[in-house]
Amino acid sequence: MPKAPTPRATARTMAQQQREISVSEFFTKNRHLLGFDSPTKALLTTVKEAVDNALDACEEAGILPDLFVEVRPTAENRFRITVEDNGPGIMKAQIPRIFGKLLYGSKFHRLRQSRGQQGIGISAAGMYGQLTTGKPVVIESRTGPRKTAHRFELVIDTLKNEPVIRKDTEADWGDRPSGTRVEIELEGVHKGGRHGTEAYLRQTVLANPHVQIVFRNTKGEEVRWERAAFDLPPAAQEILPHPYGVELGVLLRMAKDTTSRQLGAFFRQEFSRVGPKAARAIVEGAGLSITSSPKRLSAEGAEKLIASIRNTRIPQPPTGCLSPIGAERMEASLREQVNADFYTAVSRGPSVYRGNPFQVEVGLAYGGELPADQLCALNRFANRVPLQYQQGACAISRAVLATNWRSYGLQQSRGALPTAPLVLLVHVASVWVPFTSESKEAVAGYDEILKELRLGLQDAGRKLGQFIRRGQRERDAARKRAYIEKYIPHIGIALQEILGLSEREEKRVVDTLTGTLQRSRKV
Amino acid sequence: MPKAPTPRATARTMAQQQREISVSEFFTKNRHLLGFDSPTKALLTTVKEAVDNALDACEEAGILPDLFVEVRPTAENRFRITVEDNGPGIMKAQIPRIFGKLLYGSKFHRLRQSRGQQGIGISAAGMYGQLTTGKPVVIESRTGPRKTAHRFELVIDTLKNEPVIRKDTEADWGDRPSGTRVEIELEGVHKGGRHGTEAYLRQTVLANPHVQIVFRNTKGEEVRWERAAFDLPPAAQEILPHPYGVELGVLLRMAKDTTSRQLGAFFRQEFSRVGPKAARAIVEGAGLSITSSPKRLSAEGAEKLIASIRNTRIPQPPTGCLSPIGAERMEASLREQVNADFYTAVSRGPSVYRGNPFQVEVGLAYGGELPADQLCALNRFANRVPLQYQQGACAISRAVLATNWRSYGLQQSRGALPTAPLVLLVHVASVWVPFTSESKEAVAGYDEILKELRLGLQDAGRKLGQFIRRGQRERDAARKRAYIEKYIPHIGIALQEILGLSEREEKRVVDTLTGTLQRSRKV
Repeated sequence: MPKAPTPRATARTMAQQQREISVSEFFTKNRHLLGFDSPTKALLTTVKEAVDNALDACEEAGILPDLFVEVRPTAENRFRITVEDNGPGIMKAQIPRIFGKLLYGSKFHRLRQSRGQQGIGISAAGMYGQLTTGKPVVIESRTGPRKTAHRFELVIDTLKNEPVIRKDTEADWGDRPSGTRVEIELEGVHKGGRHGTEAYLRQTVLANPHVQIVFRNTKGEEVRWERAAFDLPPAAQEILPHPYGVELGVLLRMAKDTTSRQLGAFFRQEFSRVGPKAARAIVEGAGLSITSSPKRLSAEGAEKLIASIRNTRIPQPPTGCLSPIGAERMEASLREQVNADFYTAVSRGPSVYRGNPFQVEVGLAYGGELPADQLCALNRFANRVPLQYQQGACAISRAVLATNWRSYGLQQSRGALPTAPLVLLVHVASVWVPFTSESKEAVAGYDEILKELRLGLQDAGRKLGQFIRRGQRERDAARKRAYIEKYIPHIGIALQEILGLSEREEKRVVDTLTGTLQRSRKV
Repeated sequence: MPKAPTPRATARTMAQQQREISVSEFFTKNRHLLGFDSPTKALLTTVKEAVDNALDACEEAGILPDLFVEVRPTAENRFRITVEDNGPGIMKAQIPRIFGKLLYGSKFHRLRQSRGQQGIGISAAGMYGQLTTGKPVVIESRTGPRKTAHRFELVIDTLKNEPVIRKDTEADWGDRPSGTRVEIELEGVHKGGRHGTEAYLRQTVLANPHVQIVFRNTKGEEVRWERAAFDLPPAAQEILPHPYGVELGVLLRMAKDTTSRQLGAFFRQEFSRVGPKAARAIVEGAGLSITSSPKRLSAEGAEKLIASIRNTRIPQPPTGCLSPIGAERMEASLREQVNADFYTAVSRGPSVYRGNPFQVEVGLAYGGELPADQLCALNRFANRVPLQYQQGACAISRAVLATNWRSYGLQQSRGALPTAPLVLLVHVASVWVPFTSESKEAVAGYDEILKELRLGLQDAGRKLGQFIRRGQRERDAARKRAYIEKYIPHIGIALQEILGLSEREEKRVVDTLTGTLQRSRKV
């Protein structure tokens, strides 16, 4: 029953209601922020988080990824998701918090491209499983051939956001040298189509040709994607923050935490691309001394430093921290994926938003068997991970909508995607992809990112435009040729009658005219 | 400089990188999740969070809200935001955590419509100010005419997510009996237009006619919105969770936490709309005894209970917890806002998603001075708060796009909003609005919500369709009348010549013909 009408509150009665909210409580109630707002999405999100972690771990350890993914029905609207990798494994002591605590991980505090970044995803998936089925998460992991494999059964105490170990045993991994296997049972709905697990895995392989996946679907059938490339993408390097984009608050904290005793050394050691000259320019530009102590930096001093940084020329951040797909690879992916008349891809140079390096890549396929009367298909990727939901929320989509595709010879209604036989592939790679929510389904619209997207789409668009116009010219030329060929014989006959030419002479006239005219039209 | 290429990692080296992430660190890095991804947005978000809290506090205390809002430039791209209310004030002990700790508040743990729900917004605004200017948040509050007003200067320790008090003094509030005043200085950009502060406040007043606001803009000019209604909206009541939509994990926790000793009593006391009969039906339907102890409930038992709940008829949740705007009020707002030919509004009945009551309202204005050649303007509201960003991400927009406006006589291209002289006003009210991110800019696409939106838009659309078709008929009729009136005189003249009629006779003929023809056409 409803309580009696709430009496009008006072500061005192309100104070009694003030409470701390645990991050797991928060995400339980806001689970759509994590991609668990529908049973279909919940299933896919769980697979996705586990696969992201597996691929990150393998690549970090320099191992060609070999994944096993299973979606096994256990009851009506219930599935047991299993993802196993051949990665380096996880130290026993770390397992409980990695899988049983939100906001815990290794990727948040570093500047380096990876699929996971927040330390939320896999624990959230486990929490969702526990919420809908009461079943614990099962993790097995082995860190080397001479090590024993461990097996944990975990649940999350959502009020404390802490893992609770239900079982802790050993597991027999036979001759599998190392890796991690996670099993989560959850309430979900399995769907095929472009939002389905198989579609997701196929796109993953397209953007990660060095990956091999065996997928056992709900019917128990196995789909296998062999690796198309036998070398790992170059290992993304970790970098220091770049002075451009550093904020006052962050600068103050870094100054408090640094081990350097002098401001000059502080900038050289804690920032990317700052040499002695730049360090001096920054510090003295702020009217401070390079020998003064970072610890004593005041808010006002920090403000002056930020201003001085803006006036100091500092090279762009190094981009070894990024691992783009590459134009050739994108074009190849498109050729595998769709049967079209024209393919192209563009890989933009690296750029920076809020001090974070990022890079945009655009590929497209046009014509052929693609449907001409529908809106173009847009495939979005972030750090090599396919984005399958929230297209409307994504900076990538905004950039595509904002591009004037008419000028490249396509149909486009106001506020809509172009209507054309077109597939677009857009990839944003960054040390920190700004997603619009923790579910990592869409990229936030930072101006610098939108700009790079626009330029990338325009590059690709222009190439498409040339192809379409060339097609146009060729069709025109063909029509003219047909025209000429239709009438010349009649001219021939006419001349023959007027001048009384012989058959041979008439033929010569016709051939000459045809030749001449065609040459004159360069067709 | 970049570090040397990261050596390939092992389980051990990775373990050394695993760390806990504080919720404030998380949101500092992900500040776009909170609506701080651009300086323009940051400014508006700060005003918005402060205004939301002020209005919630006043309404909860039964006070007609009287707000003062100021955006004062302090330097280039720097503003000091001040929001003061006449609410009940805040107890001294609560102030630091309410303004200096993320995930702390009174609204998260209850089921009742309010603007704030997460306990994040205002602290996040303060954190952003501190991050960009190093300045503390200044709060003054007085809880009654006989109480002294307190003044705090706070910063957040982002590593601990805890408030740090810089200053704690008294303030002179003269004859102002009670209220709260918050000042945040931040780096921002002030914009006019529909994303600007003034537009936001205007829309707030439209959806909250009982509110009075004085806005002092960046030029120091004051804009004043007088209250249009002198009674508060009925106080939204707090309700208990409804059994439909309760999840296994939640049920288990409630059973552990309850004070009831028996399952039957547990369901009667902890849930909305469950009487003795329903309680018995649920428990016995699960093959359990109403006298058994909730504390001993097993996961299997909980599963059976959930299944049994689904098979038990339980009345929908009470809706006193909701505070819709109302169809009349929405239509009135539209009349104030735009000069059009046709206005209508629909207030749907309450419905439920995941156990949370919610309600959809749709208003529209058509024709008049509205631009006919542009996409329609869509104004979105959630719990009476205007949503000004992330339109593409919003379930409301999705529902508008999915509606077939052609069938109501409007132009609409595939995948786009209708192109028409149309303003749409859509409101979603709920005890828990599922926003797509913590910035509360867009509503997540839960199926039940999308369905209600669709039905609401169709209701309003049909009415519009009737008006447009009627307009069509009238235009046709008018054209015929004009036609008739144009030619009858000539017939008259013709007859006059043929039959030699007199002026009078001719006029009679013309009048008769006109009358007859018009009657025959019922025009």
